[in-house]
Amino acid sequence: MTATVHRLGSRPVPSLDPMIELVAHDMNLVNAVILDRMQSDIPLIPKLAGHLIAGGGKRLRPMLTLASAQLLAYGGARHHRLAAAVEFIHTATLLHDDVVDGSDLRRGRRTANIIWGNPASVLVGDFLFSRSFELMVEDGSLKVLRILSNASAVIAEGEVNQLTAARRIDIGEERYLEIIGAKTAALFAAACRIAGVVAERPDREETALDAYGRNLGIAFQLVDDAIDYVSDAGTMGKDAGDDFREGKMTLPVILAYARGDTEARAFWKDAVEGRRAEDSDFAEAIDRVRETRAVDDTLARARHYGQRAVDALGIFPASAAKDAMVEAVEFAVARAY
Amino acid sequence: MTATVHRLGSRPVPSLDPMIELVAHDMNLVNAVILDRMQSDIPLIPKLAGHLIAGGGKRLRPMLTLASAQLLAYGGARHHRLAAAVEFIHTATLLHDDVVDGSDLRRGRRTANIIWGNPASVLVGDFLFSRSFELMVEDGSLKVLRILSNASAVIAEGEVNQLTAARRIDIGEERYLEIIGAKTAALFAAACRIAGVVAERPDREETALDAYGRNLGIAFQLVDDAIDYVSDAGTMGKDAGDDFREGKMTLPVILAYARGDTEARAFWKDAVEGRRAEDSDFAEAIDRVRETRAVDDTLARARHYGQRAVDALGIFPASAAKDAMVEAVEFAVARAY
Repeated sequence: MTATVHRLGSRPVPSLDPMIELVAHDMNLVNAVILDRMQSDIPLIPKLAGHLIAGGGKRLRPMLTLASAQLLAYGGARHHRLAAAVEFIHTATLLHDDVVDGSDLRRGRRTANIIWGNPASVLVGDFLFSRSFELMVEDGSLKVLRILSNASAVIAEGEVNQLTAARRIDIGEERYLEIIGAKTAALFAAACRIAGVVAERPDREETALDAYGRNLGIAFQLVDDAIDYVSDAGTMGKDAGDDFREGKMTLPVILAYARGDTEARAFWKDAVEGRRAEDSDFAEAIDRVRETRAVDDTLARARHYGQRAVDALGIFPASAAKDAMVEAVEFAVARAY
Repeated sequence: MTATVHRLGSRPVPSLDPMIELVAHDMNLVNAVILDRMQSDIPLIPKLAGHLIAGGGKRLRPMLTLASAQLLAYGGARHHRLAAAVEFIHTATLLHDDVVDGSDLRRGRRTANIIWGNPASVLVGDFLFSRSFELMVEDGSLKVLRILSNASAVIAEGEVNQLTAARRIDIGEERYLEIIGAKTAALFAAACRIAGVVAERPDREETALDAYGRNLGIAFQLVDDAIDYVSDAGTMGKDAGDDFREGKMTLPVILAYARGDTEARAFWKDAVEGRRAEDSDFAEAIDRVRETRAVDDTLARARHYGQRAVDALGIFPASAAKDAMVEAVEFAVARAY
């Protein structure tokens, strides 16, 4: 047996394309389920849901379910419905997030709450959330239901945790990792793990898929946080400085604050408390994260989790699916360069 | 066999007390589940959820699950966890409703959204909703999961339907019944029906319980609507005129508008569009609903559904549980007198 050691950084220009191609056929079937099940006799529901669902999202989470199923050479069709359920949970979360954050733009388009109002976004989110459970119930696996209902509760807890940490400069790296582990990584982990359930694989494979998704989710979120402080960003439909101007607590801020002197700490405290939202303030913030290597080290942390994600796949034999899943991690951690 | 014909109005002062006493022991066990499962490491979650859960609600929906189980002489304990799940769905809905309506008072107390803000109410609602599914998954019945996930989707659809009907004077009685059938009656129906599932009763008993709950839910909502236009109301923690001042479309308004002349219709149109929110406007509204018998006939409609609820129980043998469930309907339709 030949050991295959995947080291991050081995591909010069990593891309998500191999994974997109790998799951293209399956994703068409998932999209059909999504379109079918977001319908309702109440016209506002498909209109509002469709705005977000058709709005250029990458469908990364359902893609992970599909890729994981291919990794396990699963030959059935149950994962299509479940991948749609995962995307519905994610979409419901985004709708509620935009209400919670008062966001007006997502992926470069006006948010649903701006177009149709907060009440509609809250209620259509609830509808999609209920629909996701209906899809799972149709599938009929209590194990899948347990994994995804638990992930949903953990996501909601993570969101409340984040809300109570908002604009508090002193939350620290541990609490921050707890928050993103819940609000972002839990669904990545569940999306991968359920493939192991439908393919009826042993626990250790489920656990490995969970670990792959969870670590990828954390890496993904950390890179997202870093991108906000990299001035030529924009590839992910996000503008540099958005998090900063909203006073969001992210790892670059946490590191820059922890490593700064009294004067730097006063600057960051002012920023997260909403008193530093000018362009000149953002320019100063960029200088400060550079000085303290806060972005570089946020990306180093991301690579650490990315490497763990890749290594979690070590128990699976080589395959096109595995290659694509490894490259997806490389892509996730390379985005900010 | 002696037929027992229950006619509404046969009890001089109907009360909810027999049902409360009937389920008192079971309800203590349900309350223990509720208190246990609303906990979280994030302190805001039990604080916010507890405000509403401990806030003097009648727990009518879990009570219906428990009473229905007694009607079927169910001897197990599964319904305690499921009754808690039903209450969590209801609580999540209330938290989101108050955000959607911008309410500041519920049951005479400040709403959670006023105390902790809309974002926290949205997210804690999501948490309770997820927890309700976790409770159902622990129970392990896919049939129960199907009933309650479908009810949740229907509730959300009903809420969106109501939102798109808001401040529209011309929605009509049929659409209004569709809305309350979804947003109120669906959970009443599901709460009763699941008792038939855990007791493993034939379909026709499940269907009967569903019909009891559904008709009771509609009657309950119609009486709630009527109470708003009865000046000495207040028994349900609701003040007369609240709906009117918020321009809510309810059956008294629909009937008064349909039966009114051009001038009356102009008045009601102004009212639901928010241009008639003074005390003198409400006094005028009371006169207008009295003239057109709009409240009387809303209550007559409620009695119609109440009678259907009672008759749905016809297939069950006489018992203390049945008596209490009949009297609960009598109580529901007699509240406004």
